[in-house]
Amino acid sequence: MSDPVYKKIEIIGTSTVSVEDAIANGVAAVVTGGEGKADWFEVQEVRGHIANGKPSQYQVVLKVGVHIA
Amino acid sequence: MSDPVYKKIEIIGTSTVSVEDAIANGVAAVVTGGEGKADWFEVQEVRGHIANGKPSQYQVVLKVGVHIA
Amino acid sequence: MSDPVYKKIEIIGTSTVSVEDAIANGVAAVVTGGEGKADWFEVQEVRGHIANGKPSQYQVVLKVGVHIA
Amino acid sequence: MSDPVYKKIEIIGTSTVSVEDAIANGVAAVVTGGEGKADWFEVQEVRGHIANGKPSQYQVVLKVGVHIA
Amino acid sequence: MSDPVYKKIEIIGTSTVSVEDAIANGVAAVVTGGEGKADWFEVQEVRGHIANGKPSQYQVVLKVGVHIA
Amino acid sequence: MSDPVYKKIEIIGTSTVSVEDAIANGVAAVVTGGEGKADWFEVQEVRGHIANGKPSQYQVVLKVGVHIA
Amino acid sequence: MSDPVYKKIEIIGTSTVSVEDAIANGVAAVVTGGEGKADWFEVQEVRGHIANGKPSQYQVVLKVGVHIA
Amino acid sequence: MSDPVYKKIEIIGTSTVSVEDAIANGVAAVVTGGEGKADWFEVQEVRGHIANGKPSQYQVVLKVGVHIA
Amino acid sequence: MSDPVYKKIEIIGTSTVSVEDAIANGVAAVVTGGEGKADWFEVQEVRGHIANGKPSQYQVVLKVGVHIA
Amino acid sequence: MSDPVYKKIEIIGTSTVSVEDAIANGVAAVVTGGEGKADWFEVQEVRGHIANGKPSQYQVVLKVGVHIA
Amino acid sequence: MSDPVYKKIEIIGTSTVSVEDAIANGVAAVVTGGEGKADWFEVQEVRGHIANGKPSQYQVVLKVGVHIA
Amino acid sequence: MSDPVYKKIEIIGTSTVSVEDAIANGVAAVVTGGEGKADWFEVQEVRGHIANGKPSQYQVVLKVGVHIA
Repeated sequence: MSDPVYKKIEIIGTSTVSVEDAIANGVAAVVTGGEGKADWFEVQEVRGHIANGKPSQYQVVLKVGVHIA
Repeated sequence: MSDPVYKKIEIIGTSTVSVEDAIANGVAAVVTGGEGKADWFEVQEVRGHIANGKPSQYQVVLKVGVHIA
Repeated sequence: MSDPVYKKIEIIGTSTVSVEDAIANGVAAVVTGGEGKADWFEVQEVRGHIANGKPSQYQVVLKVGVHIA
Repeated sequence: MSDPVYKKIEIIGTSTVSVEDAIANGVAAVVTGGEGKADWFEVQEVRGHIANGKPSQYQVVLKVGVHIA
Repeated sequence: MSDPVYKKIEIIGTSTVSVEDAIANGVAAVVTGGEGKADWFEVQEVRGHIANGKPSQYQVVLKVGVHIA
Repeated sequence: MSDPVYKKIEIIGTSTVSVEDAIANGVAAVVTGGEGKADWFEVQEVRGHIANGKPSQYQVVLKVGVHIA
Repeated sequence: MSDPVYKKIEIIGTSTVSVEDAIANGVAAVVTGGEGKADWFEVQEVRGHIANGKPSQYQVVLKVGVHIA
Repeated sequence: MSDPVYKKIEIIGTSTVSVEDAIANGVAAVVTGGEGKADWFEVQEVRGHIANGKPSQYQVVLKVGVHIA
Repeated sequence: MSDPVYKKIEIIGTSTVSVEDAIANGVAAVVTGGEGKADWFEVQEVRGHIANGKPSQYQVVLKVGVHIA
Repeated sequence: MSDPVYKKIEIIGTSTVSVEDAIANGVAAVVTGGEGKADWFEVQEVRGHIANGKPSQYQVVLKVGVHIA
Repeated sequence: MSDPVYKKIEIIGTSTVSVEDAIANGVAAVVTGGEGKADWFEVQEVRGHIANGKPSQYQVVLKVGVHIA
Repeated sequence: MSDPVYKKIEIIGTSTVSVEDAIANGVAAVVTGGEGKADWFEVQEVRGHIANGKPSQYQVVLKVGVHIA
């Protein structure tokens, strides 16, 4: 079988800085996990914590596509 | 009844600067409204106005979770 | 018929910098396309490519509302 | 903070006459409630009661956008 | 078992006149079908045909709730 | 290739009168645009403006199906 | 205007016991809030915390319908 | 044709006791209806009435799969 | 009432051969059931069983539109 | 601006043969339309006509992504 | 990177007793699997088998959030 | 605990031949991965690449259910 196969892993990256930084943190954790080559991401949901009346943490739910075969 | 209860308030924060700033503005208005302790937010939708061919205002529809009991 | 009519065009703006920059690039392409006055945008989806274990391109699927009549 | 903030209120207007009349009744109740300036509405759902084999009441679930800051 | 049970029947009422008339036609057909007492309706979708550049038929997809036990 | 092909165009018709009138205005603009024979419409969303505490404009988001091949 | 109008309030009831108990706690808080006569509820989402490898709290997101006019 | 065919019937079971009991009541009504062998159920929605500030009836919208061929 | 009315029946056709064959089997069962003239189908979901590491049965959930009045 | 921009065009390909053939027919019409380089497709919906108790035409609603800048 | 990262695992817990028991069984399997500290669950779907005209097994599709970094 | 537990794995099978072949390739990769006995699949999305104006690769996003306990 030479047709490529991919897996989607659902991850939540967080950051106190920005949505983009939370995405990068989530992607980095998948890469570290070593399940295959991470090729793309899809944002599912953006949410976060509030502290002292301000957003204190961005939480980005992602699906990360990895090449497995 | 000692089990906590939360309410979700649907708010639209806006900003001419960034998505994150629009979130912060929406959260701040809920805090000012005084309906309870704001604990978390969930982004529902990101949209905005266009002026002179450029995005001129980000509008972020949020649900803000407040602790009411 | 004097009631305004609008059209929604589905576009994918990309950027190596940020979500906001990808939105601006998508909006600019609609303006260049000349199908009418671009009035607003609605984000449908945020996704992107990963290279070397990091997000390397943000892809923002937008609907852009243009005034056509 | 000079960026405007809006709140969405979920309301169900009813009418024995038409969908448009049910929308107007729901909007009027928000205006009466005095939570801010009502700017727009979004229909979420149209449903109703049946009596004697005929629709006897239209129920329109709306979100009404009010300007709060 | 004395708890009531209902069934939802999915029907498409049509009309050349209005959305409300299409709803009434769909409800009437369920009543004629005799599957139980029709209690409420829920609009699922509004669509229609175009002829000579104008809407020529409204088609309203409904779920009709009938009391069966 | 003799199998028919259709395109869907997303349009927003508006009216100060009724939902049905807003649909007709949106359909008319597609017909005027001349992209092919308009065959059917699908309502995506009904919304509108509020002025003086009353609905002042219906905005109906439609997909219009046109026969292109 | 004699047609009834309802409001939906989004609430999260919690319980360490069961889904039904979380619903009851959320409904009770709306009743206590005094925004109108609570008539019905709609479950939006069931989720919860895990502690020591077991569900330790059910969180039920509800919309509660109250009669306001 | 020896491939099995199934039908889904949409039913609302109710109970004053619990969600599980409402499911059982809905399933029982389908079995009594005799449209085929009931094989599985899928919960679509959980809602209910409120009386005296408490949930007084659970209403569970189900799809019940029956083997028809 | 001369406006046509249609009913949608939800059916699951299965096949060991292909998605198209499963659709045909589901449609055939509706025709055999005799509830009216079957006019169109809409695929809701494609799923199936796996045996010996291979798809062994396609299950296609369909809505079949029948002309009833 | 060197970041690529794409447009999505919504098309309905049809075929009397198979789902795959309907996709190919829809894609071919976009290519013929000349709006840019067609890069990918996304199936939105599969439906069709029934004649003589059998599927007689597959209709596949597609979004086709074209590279426009 | 000190920002926490979470993974969501999709699991189906089953029980012959109740929805709550099926949730607990699904959560327990994730804990046993050892992929990280299980923090929360989200119910995606409730379904089940029917035997002898009664629900014989509850199947609860869950996403379980685990702390992985 | 003798109640069965299943896990859903999200996979993208691809094929240059057909949708059914892409499903089989995705299922085969899960089986090879050895995470448990693969029991069923659910199609989430069908998409693909276009080359030379024709579909050149089908990509089928699947959830594969595996028996893990």
